[in-house]
Amino acid sequence: MNFYDKLRVKPGRKVDVREISTSETFGWNDREKLEARLAENAKRMLELQYRIYAENRQSLLIVLQAMDAGGKDGTINHVLYAMNPQGCRSHSFKVPTPQEASHDFLWRIHAAAPGNGEIVIFNRSHYESVLVEKVHGFVSGKQLEKRYGFINDFEEILHSNRTTIVKFFLHISKDEQLRRFGERLDDKEKHWKISENDYTERDFWDDYMDAFNLALNRCSTKHAPWFVIPSDHKSFRNLAVSEILVETMERMAPKLPDAAIDVAHIRKLYYQNAGDKKSGKKKK
Amino acid sequence: MNFYDKLRVKPGRKVDVREISTSETFGWNDREKLEARLAENAKRMLELQYRIYAENRQSLLIVLQAMDAGGKDGTINHVLYAMNPQGCRSHSFKVPTPQEASHDFLWRIHAAAPGNGEIVIFNRSHYESVLVEKVHGFVSGKQLEKRYGFINDFEEILHSNRTTIVKFFLHISKDEQLRRFGERLDDKEKHWKISENDYTERDFWDDYMDAFNLALNRCSTKHAPWFVIPSDHKSFRNLAVSEILVETMERMAPKLPDAAIDVAHIRKLYYQNAGDKKSGKKKK
Repeated sequence: MNFYDKLRVKPGRKVDVREISTSETFGWNDREKLEARLAENAKRMLELQYRIYAENRQSLLIVLQAMDAGGKDGTINHVLYAMNPQGCRSHSFKVPTPQEASHDFLWRIHAAAPGNGEIVIFNRSHYESVLVEKVHGFVSGKQLEKRYGFINDFEEILHSNRTTIVKFFLHISKDEQLRRFGERLDDKEKHWKISENDYTERDFWDDYMDAFNLALNRCSTKHAPWFVIPSDHKSFRNLAVSEILVETMERMAPKLPDAAIDVAHIRKLYYQNAGDKKSGKKKK
Repeated sequence: MNFYDKLRVKPGRKVDVREISTSETFGWNDREKLEARLAENAKRMLELQYRIYAENRQSLLIVLQAMDAGGKDGTINHVLYAMNPQGCRSHSFKVPTPQEASHDFLWRIHAAAPGNGEIVIFNRSHYESVLVEKVHGFVSGKQLEKRYGFINDFEEILHSNRTTIVKFFLHISKDEQLRRFGERLDDKEKHWKISENDYTERDFWDDYMDAFNLALNRCSTKHAPWFVIPSDHKSFRNLAVSEILVETMERMAPKLPDAAIDVAHIRKLYYQNAGDKKSGKKKK
């Protein structure tokens, strides 16, 4: 199953997230098979990450967006967890600080973008500026229109510096969200995650779906595609994200760099050092 | 075996790294037992990290220093790899950029320090300024003297903001280093890691040991201890580091925060939402 093509929002084609199933699993219901595949993907991702890191020439930006309880943290915990923290960082964007708010909306985003060899995860992102800010009217129609263009320009700038961008919308149903809120209430260890805001935002569910539609349709480009991941089933969500990431990293085709050295010359140095040792110099 | 006490450089007691074995394993030679323990520790670290992240009140700074090929990357790959990238970042300090060099030596270090809830790994650190810079005479005696004090002051500043600091010197022998250089020559995939500099630095081995002695003796404090890890055996090195990290994180005693909410009130909201659903409102 090629999830990359299956779940990608093709540039130029309009999608409506309301028509996309949140509970689809494409037949991946066998827990054991699924876990085995996830483990395989984790291993492959780690290998590819090592090459990206060593190559030190290109980078990967992973954007996660979802409704509350949609699984952003879960995806990091269960899929992106496989990455080596050396060369991979996760960045959560919260309500802008006064200093951040005194700049354009892409300022703090740009500062967190990956450099050569890096993989960066955005837990929420610049898209908040066309999602929550749109829904609550913090941004007017004309400004909003401009923002889609700015976002595409910005992502093209990153792309021009060899950053591969993939953007995941973790798509859950309104019922599934409520079920997960209920789970949080039942588990004392999860109470710290609960806020009253979760419930007030539910009233804006339809507005959010409209905002996601616009973001997906305006900003799924060839070099920065959006993927809509059916996410009611957590293990399928994890599988789909990991499949798409492996595919993406394979396409990046990272290569271990050639030795920047004259190997024969270094071998001579090695034998010199080894000889010194054998010829009786005491080791420390 | 309490490696925390065993391998710590006690404040006020002088150590000479030349007298500390690089190949000690304290009887941990059974590969299987060792791997099992490592896996256990990895699990425990992840649990504790989750609590540190959720608590969002204190932080952990892990400093790795070693001679070339001493195992800094390996320790990150095999021990710290267990951490969730959400809440954990690794920071490599390379030769200072011109902008970095135009500031005091702690400027770039401070900028990378962990915030509340974070775990940060320093792959090399501010100690380079009293190691490589001392060995090659980039810093004069009087300045150098001051630096130890500045480092202690700086670490106390971090500590005062609830940052726990642990510093690992991964201690290998000069022979083991050469053996590892040889391995790199034999493995084409590792050629990109080789530099001629590796061999020229070997000539300064003794000076480095002197510099490490000073750094360890001057800067192993109660709130920012140094640990000397016998590192000729990679799996023992990994075990020792993971044991000390678990112990350190246990001592931090991170607690999940209390719910910032009135749970009964939220439960009412939950039932309201669930009721709306049952009473016939169509789900989207």
